[in-house]
Amino acid sequence: MNVAHQISRVSFIGSGNVATALGLAFNIAGIKIDEVYSPNENNAKSLANKLKCSWVKNIEDLNTNSDLFIIAIPDQKIIDLEKYLPKINGIIAHTSGSQSIDVLNTNKNKYGVFYPLQTFTKSKEIEFTNIPICIEGSDETTSNLLIDLAKKISNNVVMLNSEQRQYLHLTAVTVNNFSNLMYNLAHDVLIEKEIDFSLLLPLIQETALKVHNINPSEAQTGPARRNDKSTINKHLELLNSYPDYKEVYRLLSNQLIRKYHDKL
Amino acid sequence: MNVAHQISRVSFIGSGNVATALGLAFNIAGIKIDEVYSPNENNAKSLANKLKCSWVKNIEDLNTNSDLFIIAIPDQKIIDLEKYLPKINGIIAHTSGSQSIDVLNTNKNKYGVFYPLQTFTKSKEIEFTNIPICIEGSDETTSNLLIDLAKKISNNVVMLNSEQRQYLHLTAVTVNNFSNLMYNLAHDVLIEKEIDFSLLLPLIQETALKVHNINPSEAQTGPARRNDKSTINKHLELLNSYPDYKEVYRLLSNQLIRKYHDKL
Repeated sequence: MNVAHQISRVSFIGSGNVATALGLAFNIAGIKIDEVYSPNENNAKSLANKLKCSWVKNIEDLNTNSDLFIIAIPDQKIIDLEKYLPKINGIIAHTSGSQSIDVLNTNKNKYGVFYPLQTFTKSKEIEFTNIPICIEGSDETTSNLLIDLAKKISNNVVMLNSEQRQYLHLTAVTVNNFSNLMYNLAHDVLIEKEIDFSLLLPLIQETALKVHNINPSEAQTGPARRNDKSTINKHLELLNSYPDYKEVYRLLSNQLIRKYHDKL
Repeated sequence: MNVAHQISRVSFIGSGNVATALGLAFNIAGIKIDEVYSPNENNAKSLANKLKCSWVKNIEDLNTNSDLFIIAIPDQKIIDLEKYLPKINGIIAHTSGSQSIDVLNTNKNKYGVFYPLQTFTKSKEIEFTNIPICIEGSDETTSNLLIDLAKKISNNVVMLNSEQRQYLHLTAVTVNNFSNLMYNLAHDVLIEKEIDFSLLLPLIQETALKVHNINPSEAQTGPARRNDKSTINKHLELLNSYPDYKEVYRLLSNQLIRKYHDKL
């Protein structure tokens, strides 16, 4: 099997948010996109159009000559892919935070992981320069090829093994999805009380910025941090008509009190 | 009792983070600071020095001629203040999110609330222009005087009644302290797994920015949002050695599933 000295031609298996974001970033960096495969013809066409490349809707028609095939499909479909994938040359890499590299260890290909750590939406173009890209390869040559490629679109490229990447993905869910749930709970109550949610935006922004300079343990403030039971109880009372929110408030406050006070 | 047509001289009761941040902002806006009172002599001196004004450590020595006395002391001490405060002219206003305006309704003064919604630390100077300042007054004249003053340091001044302000404070705790707890949980695990926490910073940043443009309900993504039980269970397993974190992950995921799926 031949592996190129550098990756200069890429194909995408999948046409969702991650494929779109990566494809556009590759385009800007001058990496040639060969082809997009998606069983959804409209999505395949639409992304191929953006990336000025060809597309196929049947996987057996895939052009097998790219240096790299990037799998950007839902996690649970990655394992099944092997059954249908034609024999390809080059490297095959998935983009999943939570899947081990081993899910690709089923044929004779070189394989790896190319995981960009960010939340992508098709509607919003993302500046890739600072987005961390986490690389893992089936062997050193593959790792190095993937690293070289990643460095063409990002200044923030790291090697992580599968266990580390899984923990990173778990914490990414925590800081992204769960923080957004906090915004979500706040939003629902403020709407009902006829208070403009945008009043919270400077605070949300400052909270996110603060941990760029000091670690989250030092940045922690608030009633639970200072064990101010009177304010906590007042807040729990305000939440009497919001049982889900109240449960969250109680658990998170208790954990903060335990973390900062009970251990003293 | 005389109330000025505008507030041009301010004194501070308290010398902590809020007094410091407000005092510096007033200074820049050309509002004269008369005096700082704090029972802690060092803090009183230090703030008076920054604000180029006098200071007292005994409340009975307070210069009673300011147009406005801003109370910036811990919530639970506000009520007691009344016992010691000499008879003053002008307005008295507290800066608390969670205390009703009525805690100041104990003498014949004009009174109000001047609540800046932000997280303050003495070490970091804050640009006040976009910080929301929430105003409430004992009467229309007082409200208007406080609004006029607030507009000299911020473009984001709103009138809120005490109930609304208490809900706003509760949601501020949620988006600030509880989001920071998410960062905190993530940080502790990443340290142990020898993964650099700064990999999460672009995602934390993007999560905070996203809700500037779309509402948090639409911005919600992740395994629980799409009811992806397989990823959720994998994450819970990864958290077996972190029981507190696991409890948070489980509760928040269940609430998201309930919010986005069970109601469909």
